[in-house]
Amino acid sequence: MENVTSEISSDAAKRGRPRSDDVERAILSAASDLLMERGLDAMTIEEVAARACVGKASIYRRWSTKGSLALDAFLVDYLAQQPVVDTGVLEDDLREALSLWSAAVVGTAMGRALVGIIAEAQNDDDLAQGWIDRVLAPAREQYRVMLDRAIERGEIPVGSDVDVIMDLLYGAAYHRLLQGHLAIDAEFIARVSRMVARGAQAGAAIAPQ
Amino acid sequence: MENVTSEISSDAAKRGRPRSDDVERAILSAASDLLMERGLDAMTIEEVAARACVGKASIYRRWSTKGSLALDAFLVDYLAQQPVVDTGVLEDDLREALSLWSAAVVGTAMGRALVGIIAEAQNDDDLAQGWIDRVLAPAREQYRVMLDRAIERGEIPVGSDVDVIMDLLYGAAYHRLLQGHLAIDAEFIARVSRMVARGAQAGAAIAPQ
Repeated sequence: MENVTSEISSDAAKRGRPRSDDVERAILSAASDLLMERGLDAMTIEEVAARACVGKASIYRRWSTKGSLALDAFLVDYLAQQPVVDTGVLEDDLREALSLWSAAVVGTAMGRALVGIIAEAQNDDDLAQGWIDRVLAPAREQYRVMLDRAIERGEIPVGSDVDVIMDLLYGAAYHRLLQGHLAIDAEFIARVSRMVARGAQAGAAIAPQ
Repeated sequence: MENVTSEISSDAAKRGRPRSDDVERAILSAASDLLMERGLDAMTIEEVAARACVGKASIYRRWSTKGSLALDAFLVDYLAQQPVVDTGVLEDDLREALSLWSAAVVGTAMGRALVGIIAEAQNDDDLAQGWIDRVLAPAREQYRVMLDRAIERGEIPVGSDVDVIMDLLYGAAYHRLLQGHLAIDAEFIARVSRMVARGAQAGAAIAPQ
């Protein structure tokens, strides 16, 4: 593997320009920075190109719209701050996962970018669909792992609706983030996690007969 | 009482213009209609005045900003569609309350107004605070009644964090409304209500020791 990497690198060096993966990373990094600094509305492809030291064509070859680039850029940082947790106990997993989400978005530039994207998506169908496909779906796939593990351990019943469980856990937190009526603090996170774990353990996320 | 009402009415008639309560109702009704038709951004005080057949001064005497008028107008219809439920069983109350909310906002003009206001509030601190004070707080006072009754019945423990319970129930639903990843249907409502009821009944909404 070491060999392969060197070969590619030296090949790229021979061409006198960064190889495609590096270009992509530079674009995503520049887009992420601009998104956090100014929000989606004020960010432009020109600025991303200038900051990433690439031509606009290099961006448009990979992303057809500013929105799709912004969402991909957002996702990279967003998921990196929310590694899959595995304490072996559902309630502890939920509390740890929600704490990671909270640390990433409450009072942070990433959180301002997050609510800004969700706000814009209410008036932009393409952005709304992109948000679901490019950010929400991969994030939920990552969260889903801890629920699948709880089912494997037998801690919650097979057939539990893990979408409903995720909507309860993250929905309660998004509710406070977007509506701002109450704080997202450790006590809130602990109570929400305990409520969701207890309900799921009682088999309440399975369809009523 | 009949007498008093007649007296006020005839007094208003003598003055040759509608009495103050009627003016207020006409303004709120016109504002509500315009909010549903076009959204907060496109609605103007001029149009509200024209539709309510009152002068702009009559509006500004009562509401200092378009936002505060829109929120009060929204609240009247919003609460009217969500009467306090009382089935005598928490899970049934939660399901019925969430069904009423869903009928009011999923796929309706009121729902579009709702998400439009929440989206704008992300970039407007005054609107965000107005939303909390004028809409969210009174709505939650109304929802709180069914939780207080569950505590009185002994169905959930004294000391349960009813704010967390409301954030779970409505937060899960707002999550699907705002993010649009999955449908708010009868099965979702039933599972969310059952999850929240079971968690609360298990005493999980009380602070972990």
